[in-house]
Amino acid sequence: MPLIQVDLDRSLYESSHDAIGRAIHDAQIEALGIPADDRFQVFRPREEGELKFDPAYNGVARDSLVLIQITAVHMYPVAVKRKLFETIAAKLGPLGIHAEDLLISLVENGFEDWFAGR
Amino acid sequence: MPLIQVDLDRSLYESSHDAIGRAIHDAQIEALGIPADDRFQVFRPREEGELKFDPAYNGVARDSLVLIQITAVHMYPVAVKRKLFETIAAKLGPLGIHAEDLLISLVENGFEDWFAGR
Amino acid sequence: MPLIQVDLDRSLYESSHDAIGRAIHDAQIEALGIPADDRFQVFRPREEGELKFDPAYNGVARDSLVLIQITAVHMYPVAVKRKLFETIAAKLGPLGIHAEDLLISLVENGFEDWFAGR
Repeated sequence: MPLIQVDLDRSLYESSHDAIGRAIHDAQIEALGIPADDRFQVFRPREEGELKFDPAYNGVARDSLVLIQITAVHMYPVAVKRKLFETIAAKLGPLGIHAEDLLISLVENGFEDWFAGR
Repeated sequence: MPLIQVDLDRSLYESSHDAIGRAIHDAQIEALGIPADDRFQVFRPREEGELKFDPAYNGVARDSLVLIQITAVHMYPVAVKRKLFETIAAKLGPLGIHAEDLLISLVENGFEDWFAGR
Repeated sequence: MPLIQVDLDRSLYESSHDAIGRAIHDAQIEALGIPADDRFQVFRPREEGELKFDPAYNGVARDSLVLIQITAVHMYPVAVKRKLFETIAAKLGPLGIHAEDLLISLVENGFEDWFAGR
């Protein structure tokens, strides 16, 4: 039950939200091995000025910001989480989203911290 | 100081946000024993397409998605957290929100991780 | 790579988002010692009714609610986090935002839980 939250420019949302949602979900299936129907995503389109960032932090050239927050059960090794991030970046690239524009932040909780319909 | 964040369809927000807010807050008072005035909730109405989910995950029949995120101090036993989730579901039922449509995710922090007016 | 999320009344957002963003960022630089270009903020303007709170919790007189969520690597001592909260409050005061109206909640993760452009 990873939960995905995406804040992104409205123009990018309008043009590509279905493809972005599928790309992130496919990356989770591939990197984490979650079931294909374990999909919970919320997209929050943002207007000009609502996403504030520095174009150069971490030594990259950043044009815009696509913020992806992941809440997941504490169970994945560091290498698996890293693979997830890189797989997300790889699958978003063909949609015109540069890896440089991504900020991914993962927060962990326990199995007991979820209620998914029951 | 649990913090409640709710992302939900705009139509449901428009028709029922006051009642949903009270129901979740009453569930917290009942299950966690928090003071009645310890209420911090943010509702984020979502448009068509912004909430993406699979209708069948976890063996339930899901029609829509009401996402409830809870941030709370790490102090509640697993049984109390489970009771909270079930009490929320029980109190939202009479408002026409099926338990199957809920995703609740709880993340914990420490007492020192809050600033509530001072 | 602290991530800052701010939910606030739309009127306050419209009048002051640039100054609020700078104030919070300056507080992070001062209290946490982060690099000046390590800035990632998302502002989410809220309409009437979307922020629900009690005006008196924690013994203060609260007129409105400015919700600031911080996600940061688990590395700061309690005193440093407290200094961060107080510095944010001090820098928002001159903008007309009372400390009593702030709710700050910090959640921690690990270095390995971030992807910032690479």
